[in-house]
Amino acid sequence: MREDEITGWFRQQRQLSPTDVPIGIGDDMAQIALGPEASVLITTDMLLDGTHFDLKTATLEQVGYKSMAASLSDCAAMATIPLAAVVAVGLPPGWSGRQLQDLHAGVVFAADKYHCPLVGGDITSWQGDGRLVVCVSMLSKPGGKPPVRRNGAKVGDIIGVTGSLGGSGRRKHLEFEPRVNEALEITQIADLHAMMDISDGLSTDLNRICTQSGVGAVIDASSVPISDDARHQADPLDAALNEGEDFELLFTLSAEQWDRLYRQWDHPVPVTGIGAITDTGRMEIRMPDGRIRDLRPGGYDHLAD
Amino acid sequence: MREDEITGWFRQQRQLSPTDVPIGIGDDMAQIALGPEASVLITTDMLLDGTHFDLKTATLEQVGYKSMAASLSDCAAMATIPLAAVVAVGLPPGWSGRQLQDLHAGVVFAADKYHCPLVGGDITSWQGDGRLVVCVSMLSKPGGKPPVRRNGAKVGDIIGVTGSLGGSGRRKHLEFEPRVNEALEITQIADLHAMMDISDGLSTDLNRICTQSGVGAVIDASSVPISDDARHQADPLDAALNEGEDFELLFTLSAEQWDRLYRQWDHPVPVTGIGAITDTGRMEIRMPDGRIRDLRPGGYDHLAD
Repeated sequence: MREDEITGWFRQQRQLSPTDVPIGIGDDMAQIALGPEASVLITTDMLLDGTHFDLKTATLEQVGYKSMAASLSDCAAMATIPLAAVVAVGLPPGWSGRQLQDLHAGVVFAADKYHCPLVGGDITSWQGDGRLVVCVSMLSKPGGKPPVRRNGAKVGDIIGVTGSLGGSGRRKHLEFEPRVNEALEITQIADLHAMMDISDGLSTDLNRICTQSGVGAVIDASSVPISDDARHQADPLDAALNEGEDFELLFTLSAEQWDRLYRQWDHPVPVTGIGAITDTGRMEIRMPDGRIRDLRPGGYDHLAD
Repeated sequence: MREDEITGWFRQQRQLSPTDVPIGIGDDMAQIALGPEASVLITTDMLLDGTHFDLKTATLEQVGYKSMAASLSDCAAMATIPLAAVVAVGLPPGWSGRQLQDLHAGVVFAADKYHCPLVGGDITSWQGDGRLVVCVSMLSKPGGKPPVRRNGAKVGDIIGVTGSLGGSGRRKHLEFEPRVNEALEITQIADLHAMMDISDGLSTDLNRICTQSGVGAVIDASSVPISDDARHQADPLDAALNEGEDFELLFTLSAEQWDRLYRQWDHPVPVTGIGAITDTGRMEIRMPDGRIRDLRPGGYDHLAD
């Protein structure tokens, strides 16, 4: 059972009304219409102790921050403006009010920083054994342009990413900045065809854009921005391609729009062109020696054994 | 650490803008403004194996249904119209696709029945030991009237409930019908001052209305509608007052509006007047022998030891 198969199965179970639900299952957020003018987007992310964080090493503030930041990254992935969040927690037995306050401090730090107030929640406790689970659901609204989806990549598009990739497990996955502001700035400068955030690794998430858009892609290995933390690993390129939780933006746009973006971009977080969308229907990578190899989704799958 | 103390603490941490967030922490749902005309409400509910259901006896369809129904009951509690839901799950190790499909079937059964489509979600798995956790977040919109809050009860109000109370743990807590339609019909007939759904037991939830409204209440014990399942218990009145997960509506309204509601109510689910809001600042109960006794919140507290 793979995550994408299950998501696809869910999507097929019910036909959503495109009037009521313009964007349904399979994107970073769903969009719900509220009349002819207004709409709202929603995402939910569940973080488990031992899977998405480890309470042996992470502080509760970091866990609270990461929980919010993961959903904020979904808002960024569609270039939308965060509105509000609700947080549900399942607490291990014997938790103190102080522990809940520490977790809350991390949530509120992210909420304040990204102007996304915490407006409600649910607090419950495991009976007997049970580890901490935090589930954030977040609302956003479209920015100046319609939300950017995963399924619009076109043959000939440039593939771009923000920041640098790989090595997130060392520290970044607990402290990353969701690219909310960068996404809005990018879409102010250029028209994007597709975008998502890299949560499961570049190769896995690019494969999602390719599959949903019905296209292929070729990545230029020497262009991939590799993080300092990934450079310390045995295979930095592999880390940049396949590790998860970068929470950077992955987007495609026409060559003309890319030129425009690249010229006008004036922000401390870089944007880098790393390849192009192709009509091959599969993912490839041009290695530094010039050879073309197949690129397979090698990132994290939440459900694969 | 008690649930209401923690909720109160959370509420005090940040001042929410009444323009952007007309209803914040402490009601059944929060309301977020989307411009001068539109708004949306949101709730989140986390259900844990061993706390809210027991996979030794409950089917996965029942768990999926209950997860949705609990949030639908929040929509009902404010007399709002369900719009869409997202569902996040944390799966025990080794789950099969079939098990996920069974859970999904229960979610979709409730979604279809109450016209609240599943529009997205998050699937993740525990590493090592971990029990099933399901978190539903749901959006609604106001019905014909503004959402009914907890804090509007007035001295002299009649206290009403739908259906019958107690004994839910036997079967009803897995199969209850959220009172979505009843809430909308009640508010079409009468103007309510306060409402919530009874999730933690009548005494505990009435105390929340009293505390938030700054009033007291007196319940007439012989008027409390006791469910058939509660009648089999050692103390049926205690079960009706203090057991949780009835998921019936608890509301207050003027005597005049109550008369109007009671005369015009034509629905298989009964509404019953069970007492009155007082200026005593505390909860009391008139026993069948005429004696007045203090009524203390005795329902389920998710955080009390």
